[in-house]
Amino acid sequence: MVVPKPEVKLYYKNVMANVIGDEHGITEKQLHEHLDELPEKIKTLRSFREIRMKEDAYRRLPYNTKTVEEVKKRVVKFSKNCENLVVLGIGGSALGNIALQTALNPYMYNIDDQQRQGPRLFVFDNIDPVQLASFLSWLGDNDKLDKTIFNVITKRGDTAETLSQFMIIRQLLLDKLGPDGCKKQVITTTDANQGILRRIANNAGFTSLVIPEGIGGRFSVLSAVGLFSAAMCGIDIDSLLAGARDMDTRVKCEDFYRNPAAINAAINYHFYKHGKKISVMMPYSYHLRDLADWYRQLWAESLGKAEDLAGNEVHIGPTPVKALGTTDQHSQVQLYREGPNDKLFTFIQVSNFDKDLKIGPAPDYAQELGFLAGKDLSELLNNEKRATEYGLLESERPCLTVLFDRVNAYTVGQFIYLFEVTTSFAGALFGINPYDQPAVELGREATFALMDKPGDEHEKWAKEIRSLTEIDENFLV
Amino acid sequence: MVVPKPEVKLYYKNVMANVIGDEHGITEKQLHEHLDELPEKIKTLRSFREIRMKEDAYRRLPYNTKTVEEVKKRVVKFSKNCENLVVLGIGGSALGNIALQTALNPYMYNIDDQQRQGPRLFVFDNIDPVQLASFLSWLGDNDKLDKTIFNVITKRGDTAETLSQFMIIRQLLLDKLGPDGCKKQVITTTDANQGILRRIANNAGFTSLVIPEGIGGRFSVLSAVGLFSAAMCGIDIDSLLAGARDMDTRVKCEDFYRNPAAINAAINYHFYKHGKKISVMMPYSYHLRDLADWYRQLWAESLGKAEDLAGNEVHIGPTPVKALGTTDQHSQVQLYREGPNDKLFTFIQVSNFDKDLKIGPAPDYAQELGFLAGKDLSELLNNEKRATEYGLLESERPCLTVLFDRVNAYTVGQFIYLFEVTTSFAGALFGINPYDQPAVELGREATFALMDKPGDEHEKWAKEIRSLTEIDENFLV
Repeated sequence: MVVPKPEVKLYYKNVMANVIGDEHGITEKQLHEHLDELPEKIKTLRSFREIRMKEDAYRRLPYNTKTVEEVKKRVVKFSKNCENLVVLGIGGSALGNIALQTALNPYMYNIDDQQRQGPRLFVFDNIDPVQLASFLSWLGDNDKLDKTIFNVITKRGDTAETLSQFMIIRQLLLDKLGPDGCKKQVITTTDANQGILRRIANNAGFTSLVIPEGIGGRFSVLSAVGLFSAAMCGIDIDSLLAGARDMDTRVKCEDFYRNPAAINAAINYHFYKHGKKISVMMPYSYHLRDLADWYRQLWAESLGKAEDLAGNEVHIGPTPVKALGTTDQHSQVQLYREGPNDKLFTFIQVSNFDKDLKIGPAPDYAQELGFLAGKDLSELLNNEKRATEYGLLESERPCLTVLFDRVNAYTVGQFIYLFEVTTSFAGALFGINPYDQPAVELGREATFALMDKPGDEHEKWAKEIRSLTEIDENFLV
Repeated sequence: MVVPKPEVKLYYKNVMANVIGDEHGITEKQLHEHLDELPEKIKTLRSFREIRMKEDAYRRLPYNTKTVEEVKKRVVKFSKNCENLVVLGIGGSALGNIALQTALNPYMYNIDDQQRQGPRLFVFDNIDPVQLASFLSWLGDNDKLDKTIFNVITKRGDTAETLSQFMIIRQLLLDKLGPDGCKKQVITTTDANQGILRRIANNAGFTSLVIPEGIGGRFSVLSAVGLFSAAMCGIDIDSLLAGARDMDTRVKCEDFYRNPAAINAAINYHFYKHGKKISVMMPYSYHLRDLADWYRQLWAESLGKAEDLAGNEVHIGPTPVKALGTTDQHSQVQLYREGPNDKLFTFIQVSNFDKDLKIGPAPDYAQELGFLAGKDLSELLNNEKRATEYGLLESERPCLTVLFDRVNAYTVGQFIYLFEVTTSFAGALFGINPYDQPAVELGREATFALMDKPGDEHEKWAKEIRSLTEIDENFLV
């Protein structure tokens, strides 16, 4: 018997006008219009060399067998005597790592030795000193430094947060283990040739993995950025990439009426243009919550742009919001149903859970709970999703669903790739460059100025920023 | 020397028109108009008996010394031989518990025995069977059941998620420890008289804490709901309530031009009315991230309403979004700066961190990092905040800041109370009932129907919901 491979599919009936009405739904004709204009718009987008180069770069990742081999080689090397893996990275150098870990490893992974295949994983994508000090105190008290591997990830190689963390860790390693010890505990993931971290890695002799040219942070999870920590923690990266490749076949389908990325992009574009500026992703699976967070970066940085391709000022971009079912039924659904009809909802629904629990019998003195007794917890979870969707449909709110047959590396690979290509297609429809992030640069430079990075211009600028952000007691209550 | 008490303050200069311009800012005149009309609007709101009762109920919580005594008594009792505390609750019965824990206890609390005063804390505010199974497997393998206390929290007493979890845990406890053992491991927090959980607690003889009448879930963190797990985990609940009381004095100030809750509410109301329908809360502190999540429920459920007080259909409510600095600079700030100018930002900034770390020296071969070396990590964090704020101001986006002198139970109590009263005032300005959540009911009932709760109407309804949410293969790609 051939077991069919589990799949990720997009279900879009409940955004249609014949379900939620003409005022808030999309008609088949409107959907087809967007799909019909998409090929031409993709062509326009790809006529920009820089854009084409970046798109092709991330779309090659699932086929990059050399990277997989290199990652596996490093995993063999670093797994020896490794109890803790620490990722130092931020944004695209952390969100994918976190998402893979929570999606595919047990909830108690870091606490329960028996549920863990590989080291504990800690991802520091922030620079809160209280948080990091707590971790370092634990490491120090338990003499775990020489059993802890630090994976420093930055594509550009000059990310202030990541390098500052690294400078703290490096000094600690040098103090406690000396230069040779330090060398053994660090693996960098950065550009092959460029950037400060590359120079540091080469000079210090750190083991190192390469992020291919043209890969932006938010499109990097299927590169060494995401693969190394995943493979260290026992995640099947071959299946992950196989899933991405199978989705690639599907999103290459030239009949856009049957192409999930094209339909997803067209629907998202349509609703944004029709006043639904907020895009809520709501997995009904605790384990998929950080995939929604990963998506949040992908969507916001790719589609939130001041200028279109022709250089016109447009200031567009849907605001992605992550929610979690059933948790947020008791937090956000009141607003979602009764508040402004300004949102497109994308649920994630899992058909088969790998583990299930039977709800116990009702106590004698609470027999009205009898209808729950003996049922699977997953049945309740999925019925909650249907009930929430029903409520939203009653209020004429458009609802997409991404269906996971089951959650494993293969389906997560499909999901990631589906949303990456959806983002590219949406970029084409919006007529913006989905691969740059010009607004982030200003903040980066402003931080450098405030930290007194040498340079005359910096000094003047720092003064201006300080005066603008200095607390004025007249407005403090 | 008298050390001044640390305070939480609201800083609002950077929403003003003379900072970000007339098109997107608020003028002093506009602000004063809202503040001037607020007393009358509060009076109108409080003319509804049900509303007045609920408002008074939560505002009494900081003064409820009897609850504190009861909680402390239970803590003494349950702390003996308790290695793990499990909260079963959802929405308002979980978000406050989580927020207090992450704000006030170390990052490594659950992992590092030396950093923990009290039991490990696990809050299950979801019904993902894979997540719960992972936890139960750890408990079972390690024979920890008799060292684990389960705090079951639901105000209404009939929350399907919480009761289902409880029915699983109850059966496990009965199987492994028998009725007497089960009794010892459970403490319920629910209404004094009403609801299924109250009946179960009374019949089974569970220890129990009371949620006072009129307290809605999202206003319950300063009741036994939030206090018990906090106190069990070593959090100073006296200081927490003292902070709330001190803030109460400040928000009672009848000169609304100097009242932080009034100003906060007026500003939020104004910007919503002027097209900024999204309200982003962005703490620059990893530890305050879940306070933003707590706020997200408070804001969405309280202000997202279909009808105003007069029963007119209005469909209003700002959409709260939680973000995290610096993490989300590398995820959301591109959109925040360049996308639509449809957001009001509320930063949280901490002046003094309890722990700090010095950034290590730059490697010889990377001397351009020298400007970071030797500086405090907190300096970088706060400069990143200023840089981000600067970028947003350059793009004419309004920015509030909530300033924490430092993070401790006393200031967190102030923050919680400030935002609760802000919510009440905002409710008055919007002219809606901030204490109900009518839209949540439909989903609750629909779930019961789908789970085949007996009743003719349920059966018919379930059929309708199923047919509406059944997958139609024609829309599956």
